[in-house]
Amino acid sequence: MKLREVELRRIRMPLVSPFRTSFGTQTGRDLLLVRVVTDDVEGWGECAAMASPVYSPEYLDGCADVLRRFFVPALRAVERLDATAVAPALRKYHGHLMAKSALEMAVLDAELQTRGTSFARELGAERDTVPCGVSVGIMDSIPELLDAVGGYLDAGYVRIKLKIEPGWDVEPVRAVRERFGDDVLLQVDANTAYTLADARHLARLDPFDLLLVEQPLAEDDILGHADLARTLRTPVCLDESITSARTAAAAIRLGACQVVNIKPGRVGGYLESRRIHDVCVANGVAAWTGGMLETGLGRAANVALAALPGCTLPGDTSASDRYYSTDITEPFVLHNGHLKVPTAPGLGLRPIPELLEEVTISTERLT
Amino acid sequence: MKLREVELRRIRMPLVSPFRTSFGTQTGRDLLLVRVVTDDVEGWGECAAMASPVYSPEYLDGCADVLRRFFVPALRAVERLDATAVAPALRKYHGHLMAKSALEMAVLDAELQTRGTSFARELGAERDTVPCGVSVGIMDSIPELLDAVGGYLDAGYVRIKLKIEPGWDVEPVRAVRERFGDDVLLQVDANTAYTLADARHLARLDPFDLLLVEQPLAEDDILGHADLARTLRTPVCLDESITSARTAAAAIRLGACQVVNIKPGRVGGYLESRRIHDVCVANGVAAWTGGMLETGLGRAANVALAALPGCTLPGDTSASDRYYSTDITEPFVLHNGHLKVPTAPGLGLRPIPELLEEVTISTERLT
Amino acid sequence: MKLREVELRRIRMPLVSPFRTSFGTQTGRDLLLVRVVTDDVEGWGECAAMASPVYSPEYLDGCADVLRRFFVPALRAVERLDATAVAPALRKYHGHLMAKSALEMAVLDAELQTRGTSFARELGAERDTVPCGVSVGIMDSIPELLDAVGGYLDAGYVRIKLKIEPGWDVEPVRAVRERFGDDVLLQVDANTAYTLADARHLARLDPFDLLLVEQPLAEDDILGHADLARTLRTPVCLDESITSARTAAAAIRLGACQVVNIKPGRVGGYLESRRIHDVCVANGVAAWTGGMLETGLGRAANVALAALPGCTLPGDTSASDRYYSTDITEPFVLHNGHLKVPTAPGLGLRPIPELLEEVTISTERLT
Amino acid sequence: MKLREVELRRIRMPLVSPFRTSFGTQTGRDLLLVRVVTDDVEGWGECAAMASPVYSPEYLDGCADVLRRFFVPALRAVERLDATAVAPALRKYHGHLMAKSALEMAVLDAELQTRGTSFARELGAERDTVPCGVSVGIMDSIPELLDAVGGYLDAGYVRIKLKIEPGWDVEPVRAVRERFGDDVLLQVDANTAYTLADARHLARLDPFDLLLVEQPLAEDDILGHADLARTLRTPVCLDESITSARTAAAAIRLGACQVVNIKPGRVGGYLESRRIHDVCVANGVAAWTGGMLETGLGRAANVALAALPGCTLPGDTSASDRYYSTDITEPFVLHNGHLKVPTAPGLGLRPIPELLEEVTISTERLT
Repeated sequence: MKLREVELRRIRMPLVSPFRTSFGTQTGRDLLLVRVVTDDVEGWGECAAMASPVYSPEYLDGCADVLRRFFVPALRAVERLDATAVAPALRKYHGHLMAKSALEMAVLDAELQTRGTSFARELGAERDTVPCGVSVGIMDSIPELLDAVGGYLDAGYVRIKLKIEPGWDVEPVRAVRERFGDDVLLQVDANTAYTLADARHLARLDPFDLLLVEQPLAEDDILGHADLARTLRTPVCLDESITSARTAAAAIRLGACQVVNIKPGRVGGYLESRRIHDVCVANGVAAWTGGMLETGLGRAANVALAALPGCTLPGDTSASDRYYSTDITEPFVLHNGHLKVPTAPGLGLRPIPELLEEVTISTERLT
Repeated sequence: MKLREVELRRIRMPLVSPFRTSFGTQTGRDLLLVRVVTDDVEGWGECAAMASPVYSPEYLDGCADVLRRFFVPALRAVERLDATAVAPALRKYHGHLMAKSALEMAVLDAELQTRGTSFARELGAERDTVPCGVSVGIMDSIPELLDAVGGYLDAGYVRIKLKIEPGWDVEPVRAVRERFGDDVLLQVDANTAYTLADARHLARLDPFDLLLVEQPLAEDDILGHADLARTLRTPVCLDESITSARTAAAAIRLGACQVVNIKPGRVGGYLESRRIHDVCVANGVAAWTGGMLETGLGRAANVALAALPGCTLPGDTSASDRYYSTDITEPFVLHNGHLKVPTAPGLGLRPIPELLEEVTISTERLT
Repeated sequence: MKLREVELRRIRMPLVSPFRTSFGTQTGRDLLLVRVVTDDVEGWGECAAMASPVYSPEYLDGCADVLRRFFVPALRAVERLDATAVAPALRKYHGHLMAKSALEMAVLDAELQTRGTSFARELGAERDTVPCGVSVGIMDSIPELLDAVGGYLDAGYVRIKLKIEPGWDVEPVRAVRERFGDDVLLQVDANTAYTLADARHLARLDPFDLLLVEQPLAEDDILGHADLARTLRTPVCLDESITSARTAAAAIRLGACQVVNIKPGRVGGYLESRRIHDVCVANGVAAWTGGMLETGLGRAANVALAALPGCTLPGDTSASDRYYSTDITEPFVLHNGHLKVPTAPGLGLRPIPELLEEVTISTERLT
Repeated sequence: MKLREVELRRIRMPLVSPFRTSFGTQTGRDLLLVRVVTDDVEGWGECAAMASPVYSPEYLDGCADVLRRFFVPALRAVERLDATAVAPALRKYHGHLMAKSALEMAVLDAELQTRGTSFARELGAERDTVPCGVSVGIMDSIPELLDAVGGYLDAGYVRIKLKIEPGWDVEPVRAVRERFGDDVLLQVDANTAYTLADARHLARLDPFDLLLVEQPLAEDDILGHADLARTLRTPVCLDESITSARTAAAAIRLGACQVVNIKPGRVGGYLESRRIHDVCVANGVAAWTGGMLETGLGRAANVALAALPGCTLPGDTSASDRYYSTDITEPFVLHNGHLKVPTAPGLGLRPIPELLEEVTISTERLT
């Protein structure tokens, strides 16, 4: 396989409603798509970074810069290119996992199309459909939150995740439990908004029987999470801290998490995601697939990942209409709280040209 | 203090000889200088990143981009600006520690000039001069290496550090010991070039009585370093892995290092460097000051840091002429293997305009 | 900076009410002030020792003696005196940390005035005001205690600390919880009054959801505290046991405390206090600033320390009128449970001559 | 038993030669004697502190002050006074162990005389004579050292201890081994002069087969000693760090020492010394009796302690003429490298009035 062309496309998609987390509020979603063209096919990748480095050090313009400047040239120099050759070719460059992931995803899509293999088969999926959870942003008021959660439950989502931050944690959880009962699968996500000094406060979540509390502390605070995990009854899940199968294995060995959120962008791609999945299964640690407000492209790949046997908790793989009134692909639609895992070769779906054009801000052909 | 102007200046300085490490060969040194102007003074910072992300995720153009796009605007919004306000103002942005460090260094230089305080006093230095080690790159042959080491010993350097990589490790160490004897203070630096599978091979360095082996494994492999440290008799020193006082404390708690290399750029600045120093001293872990081929500006600040009481090993704070035939400041000159710690307010020295102009590639005024 | 004169001033300040702890009852507060005079300014230090060696080995007359006999002469011999030179100059003398702290504080006040730097900036404070707790002595009866606590809550104090001793522990805690509810931030302080044999009894405090139990065991009993911390659900805080950043690091490494009370006198000064703060933050251990019935001078410095980011629990930095009807400086006044952090150079306030004279017992000029 | 009178006597004894340790040089020895008078007898105690607080926080004038101000008045208030009542009566006062020890020793001497019991019997001695080591100060040159050591070996001392400090450690040890052979029992004493950063350097003592290295690190650095003990082949002995049976037990549990030096003054008296001995025996840790340049009074008690079964290493209980040409008691004389253990009631010997008068600087009767 040989790269004939690589294109970076910046798109901006309006959100159906603003999405607020502990690190900021998004009203639209900027994304970077990577398209690779080989002699036979084109493959699509999606870069999950945000517009500014508030979730991780990466941001979209920075990702475009390293792709343009270092990563795409490095790939061009690879003799026999396939998806497994991407990580080794980029290994000398530290960090920039989301940029690497987008490029690898595009190469993988192209390669799998050539081979007639689906993402699901490539990753080792065992299910045809996956149960879907939904991530609920921080709201201005409890009634507004209860309305939103009620709507998602009505829509069929099988698990609710509340974004939390200091000042918006125990009360919203209590309100959701009181309104919707103890049977709702419920978890919270702090996106690093707390410190170990908040352990006592976070323990006030224990009575609400949450599935997990996600990434309460800073991403480099593995021992802090281990200390916290010994204090809390609520299982600790790591997101930002897990950047590779190695860091996952270390966090597990140190008792820093009982659950892992696998986000392919955060860990450098779907192949490393599978390895993290395997490390979790090997250690008896539950895993699930996170989400970064992907388009249908990233969603397709994430749904395939969520169908692996070790992803025993519902993922943040919600339907397209959770975020976007119009997706750039055939939309993912919820059926009984589940999404269908695509089975066609590669990602299994492709951007619809006119929809894609509509949201495109700029394109850049790298030669 | 109020920022009136911030200028980014890209410079390129020819190296007196090529410098090869496990991640590549440099023949010149590109650097990014940050100049902040207040009502009273101007302060200088220096960004230690390299031209490509091979030492860490940061690279010079990327640093300039985050400074321009996010960090300088964030600082402008600070009501009462001083150096201690820089880190909190940038805390919401993840990573990019070298860019943050350069900006904080410039603000600190400006603030300390205003206060009539030297970097040495600000950081808590206890010495007037510091002993200097030298870092010797990977060579094409052993004889070439012995020539280089001999020259540095003749020049008075009190400690030799050899860059190593697989294929260039035991033999060069043996050759240096055989030629120059057991009394030479000798250490090696792998810059993450090995894996834990090399433990047995690295143990072959034990008989040579090295001061330390620096960063043998990947930066995120803390537990691997802990395993290695239990295997080796040579003390393990961490460089790339230590990005904050918190990660230093965790690495120490896990037994991953007996020594810490403090590089202010790598950890986000001189104030965090002092914290790491203090954590090391409190835990009885030896520290020393690394180097990133700085100009006289960065060197001045590093020499102040190296004068702290816990920096008990000679640093990579070599004389200006180790790397540059002409520095952009008054050069640092070796006297009996030592450099003088600057005592004037702020950094204690400033760029010499004509020398600075000569190496300037571009300047950009951020407004 | 050169010491032109050092003055020791013994003062006696009447307490608004007797203050009883496990080691005795105070009805007035004797203190020792240290005034240093340089060519430009005068700096003030305050010695936190008590009149007899019942809190630690130090007592006021003993402090005056070592200052007079050893420490002030040692400082006079320092060539280039600033605050960072004090500890090294006195390092050869063991112990006597409160005496050393008072002298360093005075030198630091003088130096910072010269530099136009506040204690808050020097230490790295990030807040403009600090929340205040209050320490409530052992009373003759529960009703008397409830009256006192009620008064402090009415005054706005955001956290209550009860002094305890065998015979006055579970009942007063229960009574305060029953009267004032579970939302009051509540902690207890034993000042070494228990032994490990009391572990089972101290566990009876667990149901009351205390912030912490402070220094239950003897100061040299670090392993006893570690054993106790494994038994209690209430977090263990160390006070008397922590005399340096090194002892803090060791106590943390041994699991002997989840919280640290930083008292600058006890640890030899504000510079070492900052180091302890940094060690705590690096290890995810909560810190707070203790109090020793200081005048406005010590209070000013303590309030600056309490404004550091790692001081995540309210300190014993109560308003001046908690102890004294008239302070020797402008009084610190509670606003919404907070005190303002001084921002003027040095301590930011100075003794008012006539008020100081009124409480002076004796002054001694050291020449 | 009732105290009728307590007298503090300051004496100054010329040394036969200057004695240099890492904390200073003594040319004469100032001491504080405590004499208690009961209805029947008088008892003598000796305070081991030095003239300045360089070995520990205590110094002679400070000891006199706490005795006068707090401890003697506290003892006067004891209803039924005997030696076991001293520590409880003084427990509320922190620290000042040498002052407490001197007072307890005097009371114990008085009580034992009344009971017709010797110190040896009271402490549980099992031997009639004790083997003696000698402590050799830091010298100006190696030849001078070898002369001194040769003289002591000729005199019959069975063990040599060299005081060391940075710059005077490996070479003098090597020289002694080379001149006098491997059969000489040899150990070194650093009196806290090193830090953990010197671990590598201290390991250079390993080949010389020393009995022990005494107190290499600061007294509060128990974990540092534990780290060091894992590094060194030479057994680590603690002196300054051991202030009670509790701190001895903790140090042993943490692996911080394989040997303990018992100095009664440092631990608050002979009764606590026996407890430390018992803790050492219970844990299989070797003990021996240190010395502080005592007169015949302190020496008599130390020799009794050295006769306990757990004191399995020769003590620093050298003959009187090692330090003083004239002692204030009948001198202790070496026979075949041993001293006789006194058997008469109490200390077993008393000051000779005219000799005592000759060295007396001042006496103070406390009433």
